[in-house]
Amino acid sequence: MDDSQTSKQRALASVVEELRADHTSGASALSRRAARALAQAAQKAPASSPRELLQRIKEAAVALAGARPSMVAVANTVGLLLADAREQGGRADVGSLRRYVADRAEQIDELWRGTLGVIAASTTSLLPSVVMTHSYSSTVLSSLAAETAGGRRVIVCEGRPLFEGRRLAQELTAAAVDVTLITDAQAGALMAEAGAVLVGADAVLADGSVVNKAGTYLLALAAHDHHLPVYVACETLKVTAERVWGGTVAPEEKEPEEVLPEGMPGIRVRNIYFDLTPARLVTTIITEDGVFRPQGIGGLVERARRYAAALSP
Amino acid sequence: MDDSQTSKQRALASVVEELRADHTSGASALSRRAARALAQAAQKAPASSPRELLQRIKEAAVALAGARPSMVAVANTVGLLLADAREQGGRADVGSLRRYVADRAEQIDELWRGTLGVIAASTTSLLPSVVMTHSYSSTVLSSLAAETAGGRRVIVCEGRPLFEGRRLAQELTAAAVDVTLITDAQAGALMAEAGAVLVGADAVLADGSVVNKAGTYLLALAAHDHHLPVYVACETLKVTAERVWGGTVAPEEKEPEEVLPEGMPGIRVRNIYFDLTPARLVTTIITEDGVFRPQGIGGLVERARRYAAALSP
Repeated sequence: MDDSQTSKQRALASVVEELRADHTSGASALSRRAARALAQAAQKAPASSPRELLQRIKEAAVALAGARPSMVAVANTVGLLLADAREQGGRADVGSLRRYVADRAEQIDELWRGTLGVIAASTTSLLPSVVMTHSYSSTVLSSLAAETAGGRRVIVCEGRPLFEGRRLAQELTAAAVDVTLITDAQAGALMAEAGAVLVGADAVLADGSVVNKAGTYLLALAAHDHHLPVYVACETLKVTAERVWGGTVAPEEKEPEEVLPEGMPGIRVRNIYFDLTPARLVTTIITEDGVFRPQGIGGLVERARRYAAALSP
Repeated sequence: MDDSQTSKQRALASVVEELRADHTSGASALSRRAARALAQAAQKAPASSPRELLQRIKEAAVALAGARPSMVAVANTVGLLLADAREQGGRADVGSLRRYVADRAEQIDELWRGTLGVIAASTTSLLPSVVMTHSYSSTVLSSLAAETAGGRRVIVCEGRPLFEGRRLAQELTAAAVDVTLITDAQAGALMAEAGAVLVGADAVLADGSVVNKAGTYLLALAAHDHHLPVYVACETLKVTAERVWGGTVAPEEKEPEEVLPEGMPGIRVRNIYFDLTPARLVTTIITEDGVFRPQGIGGLVERARRYAAALSP
């Protein structure tokens, strides 16, 4: 292994580490960062044939996909790029394959950036005048801030442990939305004031159940108990072919200090970032490609199967 | 009004203020404080007849009962003392009525102190090996710490905004209980590890629904969704004849600074302390007088009706 190959691997490893340590960016930002990192790896990996280059790209894609096991968008994004590169691989030389990957990564970046507006437009038309949401989601922010008519009130749960809901409250207020901020524990007490729950997603499993910030499942239960709809706004690249929560797509657990900075002798502190909302509690999943019942996402699951196949050993 | 009567009223007003401002003591402590304050008022109120004394006692009882509209135990305790004093009133002179109230207040104090052990014994026998609980409750603490056999694991939700769950976690750990502390938002994510939910109560309405620290309703929903029992451990004096949550028994709202110390311009912050768990989500209510299905508390409601009648105008 020559020096330059080692330094390439180091560059990739540092992006993987960056993705792993970033607890504040959303799936869109992290996925786009992963796509760019994959394109760079494809640009610089030493390879004497398209086949060898595809092997290098795959190694990099697998490393990037593994950085965030709860955030399937990252794996799907690099899987999509890899799957497309493979199809191209048969009819390209090394140089044109490198260029193809760079161009496709650029397109995927634009795709990611374009989705928000489309999702926002669909979501806005569904929403009642009072909406409850949980923690921070860029799809939720753009959907709720898109409305120019105004007059909508949004109840935001703070999102312990790191209070990302406060950031959402601030950004919604800056967009002239009427915001009420509450503790996560008050979601039930205030559900009677809401007309719907709107959340983002970190992943949508093949059966239509939704992985999102811990507490989402509780909001969905309370909404269901109040006969209110639960809307999930997310990009199609969040859908995975996985059916099991706890396998490849697994709950991430973070530092206990985020929950209890000073610690307490003899007490175990858990800090699970995500929970699973079963499909039966989800009304519709709003994506850039349409509005789906959770049991109607079969076409999106098929796409995800292709990305996963590209990454499989 | 002479000077001494004014100073008695000031003493009572300061106890009322104390009860109102105390966000950390439980219903037992506050109810006993109210009973003692009522006995002192009975001791010192100027009165030339038992009838006049009863009128003074009632005024004091009404003031004390109004201090904490969500904590029916306070109203029930002073209502019980007043109802008993009234029955005594017909066959006593002023001096013996004062003594009666002092003795009865003492008995009620002992009654309150005795209930915890009885409730703990009943509760312990019902509990599985892993229990989830919410925030702080002295009945829950004594029930979970009573067990000498050990080996039980307790998952404690932190209880935003003031994190009373941390205090429960600490006291349980001191009693050699295996404790896991989590954010309120993780209750759903960890419910699969629990075998039951155990909570205290601030009030039990006439239909068996339970008023308790905000977040309890969410735990009950998650337990129900996991087919797990929800046990409520509380004294009979927490049962009210009221059927409506939002009337005489109303959700208390505290300072928004407890939720967001620094505030945020343009954002309304809510800090509702209690939520209502409907009777259909409650498995049993464990009291010092027995273990009841929520729909089987009619006898306790009848008693509460007597206390309320004594306080009514």
